[in-house]
Amino acid sequence: MTPEEFRRQAHALADWMADYLRDVGSLPIVPRSEPGQVRRALPARPPEAGEPFERITADFRELIVPGMTHWNHPGWFGYFPANHSPPSILAEMLTATLGAQCMSWQTSPAATELEQVVMDWLRGMLGLPDTFSGVIQDTASTATLVALLTARDAASGPLERLTVYASAEAHSSVAKGARLAGFGPERLRTVPVDGTFAMDAAALAAMVAEDMAAGLVPACVVATAGTTSSTAMDPLREIAEVCRRYAVWLHVDAAYAGSAAILPERRALFDGVELADSFVFNPHKWLLTNFDCSAYFVRDVPALLRTFATSPSYLRTTNDPDVVNYRDWGIQLGRRFRALKLWFVIRSYGVEGLRAMLRRHIAMAETFRGWVESEPGFVVPAPSPFGLVCLRHEPVELAGDAPRLDDWNRGVLERVNASRDVFLTHTTLGGRYTIRMAVGQWQTGPEDVERAWRRIVEAAAIERNKLHGVP
Amino acid sequence: MTPEEFRRQAHALADWMADYLRDVGSLPIVPRSEPGQVRRALPARPPEAGEPFERITADFRELIVPGMTHWNHPGWFGYFPANHSPPSILAEMLTATLGAQCMSWQTSPAATELEQVVMDWLRGMLGLPDTFSGVIQDTASTATLVALLTARDAASGPLERLTVYASAEAHSSVAKGARLAGFGPERLRTVPVDGTFAMDAAALAAMVAEDMAAGLVPACVVATAGTTSSTAMDPLREIAEVCRRYAVWLHVDAAYAGSAAILPERRALFDGVELADSFVFNPHKWLLTNFDCSAYFVRDVPALLRTFATSPSYLRTTNDPDVVNYRDWGIQLGRRFRALKLWFVIRSYGVEGLRAMLRRHIAMAETFRGWVESEPGFVVPAPSPFGLVCLRHEPVELAGDAPRLDDWNRGVLERVNASRDVFLTHTTLGGRYTIRMAVGQWQTGPEDVERAWRRIVEAAAIERNKLHGVP
Repeated sequence: MTPEEFRRQAHALADWMADYLRDVGSLPIVPRSEPGQVRRALPARPPEAGEPFERITADFRELIVPGMTHWNHPGWFGYFPANHSPPSILAEMLTATLGAQCMSWQTSPAATELEQVVMDWLRGMLGLPDTFSGVIQDTASTATLVALLTARDAASGPLERLTVYASAEAHSSVAKGARLAGFGPERLRTVPVDGTFAMDAAALAAMVAEDMAAGLVPACVVATAGTTSSTAMDPLREIAEVCRRYAVWLHVDAAYAGSAAILPERRALFDGVELADSFVFNPHKWLLTNFDCSAYFVRDVPALLRTFATSPSYLRTTNDPDVVNYRDWGIQLGRRFRALKLWFVIRSYGVEGLRAMLRRHIAMAETFRGWVESEPGFVVPAPSPFGLVCLRHEPVELAGDAPRLDDWNRGVLERVNASRDVFLTHTTLGGRYTIRMAVGQWQTGPEDVERAWRRIVEAAAIERNKLHGVP
Repeated sequence: MTPEEFRRQAHALADWMADYLRDVGSLPIVPRSEPGQVRRALPARPPEAGEPFERITADFRELIVPGMTHWNHPGWFGYFPANHSPPSILAEMLTATLGAQCMSWQTSPAATELEQVVMDWLRGMLGLPDTFSGVIQDTASTATLVALLTARDAASGPLERLTVYASAEAHSSVAKGARLAGFGPERLRTVPVDGTFAMDAAALAAMVAEDMAAGLVPACVVATAGTTSSTAMDPLREIAEVCRRYAVWLHVDAAYAGSAAILPERRALFDGVELADSFVFNPHKWLLTNFDCSAYFVRDVPALLRTFATSPSYLRTTNDPDVVNYRDWGIQLGRRFRALKLWFVIRSYGVEGLRAMLRRHIAMAETFRGWVESEPGFVVPAPSPFGLVCLRHEPVELAGDAPRLDDWNRGVLERVNASRDVFLTHTTLGGRYTIRMAVGQWQTGPEDVERAWRRIVEAAAIERNKLHGVP
């Protein structure tokens, strides 16, 4: 395909893309396809000869798009958002066109330096002190693994004696990362949570002291700022004090909620974060930046480099101390030019525009929470300081019957999602099946949140009628 | 930014992108910027209010593009290529627009199933048996770490007794991966290479036997199919036989050269690969697919899942055995829709079109090699079965003076790259500074290869004149 043919196709796709962004709200969020359906519709072997591009894009529209789950549908309330935005998509177009591999300064000076600049911007926006340095990782799973590996190597003791601590509500990537980093399963301590699902810092202190007395070496505490199940905030200052006392690496996983640290009125929730050793949050979740873009901040850069730097002859470039080679800041050697989309997003919206977007989401979540709380039979089992509201329907007929209530809520959620114009997911909170409503898509408006609530109330009513034999 | 405003900007960028692809050959490949130059040109703080999009794209054109290293310039002969192509860029535009997070089947059925389909296509194109299953990883560094972790967990022995083997020419990501996976530095065995820089399989067999006799547990051999320094091919069949005999996991790192396995006439070089336990190659290097896209094939999927699967409540979806959740096939939970670009590339070019492109690159490299070999004073110190040719200039005046010859070749390379219309990099081969010429960019033509050779000959002549005091 020549550049001129590319031009023609790119213009055609630009229109499709704009149409998609305009119309995505009218698509079923979750496809009707059965497992294997898309696969069976595609040939088992690749074509020997090239095909006309129009045939490929037609298949994209007719086979792929109807089989997609539309994460950027305005009725998306599942998981956490992976929101994007027009400026971010536009930046991705340019990143793809440059096709640069940004492993070191020399292989893309502007990409490296723009990453330094936007990470400094973000650091300031979050209120982190400039003792932190930033690097873009792909995901929070990777960033947490990076923190665990750095902490492992920085700890003074043999691997089999090193211990890691995280709350019972920590993300699955913590246990997975600890396992991958070679910590034995019995060396990952699960710290209990309080009634708000936040880590019990006193219990942490006791566990650390006990382990040290037993000759073990506490290597890392992973605190969560905004747990996946309920956005519970672990008490960062208290945890940091424990970590300081015992010289343990503190990693803060703020994958979703970290974006809210740009709001002065939410900053207090992150009190103590400046004492952490590393901090991760995902602009690709709630800061309008395309997946993947995970912002990792670390204080002890030499410790990071001791774990990740390599310097083979074929990569050696310059010894200029002004030069940062981000290939030495993580697992991957190769790196995409991800800073560009963050730069486009921050400049397009401005810090105030981003704050306004987050406030709008939080306000919609608060309104939704009010509706749930004032509706008989519904409960909100956890605080909701951000855009996520947890809820359960507990009709009087099933009062106290936990297993049936779990099935009941599962049934309600399935009925809600069958509408395919809203999509919510679930979790287990305090052992109970719980519906999660996460507001955070860039095009989501009050009418979408209202529709979700209406679907929930309708679904609960239909299930109740079934319970009473009403047809 | 509304969808209609997006439309306007996307059309404007489509033209810029097509112009860039058409004109990139006239840009300096490597920028003239000094370390810190781009950074200093950008404000230290983000804007509070949003800025007009035109101002952002103007800054992109005026500050960022001139500071980039242009990996897709037709004069790019550095490192290995990270080539892209128009259909791949177009697919990236769509991936960005959908903004889907493809961690599990349910979160994007079509993306998951398209990944299964294109990985099956690739497997067939490479001639791998269908006992292998494929998954897209971001980079070969990650895929090699994935293999090392799986091998570590599958080995029967405590971590401190496990050993890993790779040749002295293996990529730096092997030593880094082994370190990250917790293998002690003294547990990574460096197997010697023969005169062609390929692993000495007899030496490997002896080392494995010796280690076992000493009570150690050989866990993983990483063979390289196409080393980074010189594209040496480790003898896969002999290595695989050692691995089979001692039940050691064999991972084949074919990051660059793996693409050439789609050529029937190059298939013999990969003889024995079907006996490997895992195999990685990067379509983002030499198969016209945008970075990042690393194809990882593994035979023992249950072993992979034992190392990487998690199943927290908030991610649990379906138990359908037809369903693959790729989040369980690697480190990251979140995943981009990378299969789309591979699908677009394979269909746009067809298998024959891709073969034709590789053959064109290989033929240009062979022509170049012929020029080097027939030019007095130049040597080609290694075989060049693919698109990479290694070379050194060894003027008679410096015969036998290795340190001065190293400096000499460094000087020649710097002079060549100062032209900024071709770009080559170096390595150390057999302890000697060696220039690498890697042909593999999609727009590279004979005139670009000729220009590179002319620059090299000119640079050598100028350096020689300096040696003789000729002004």
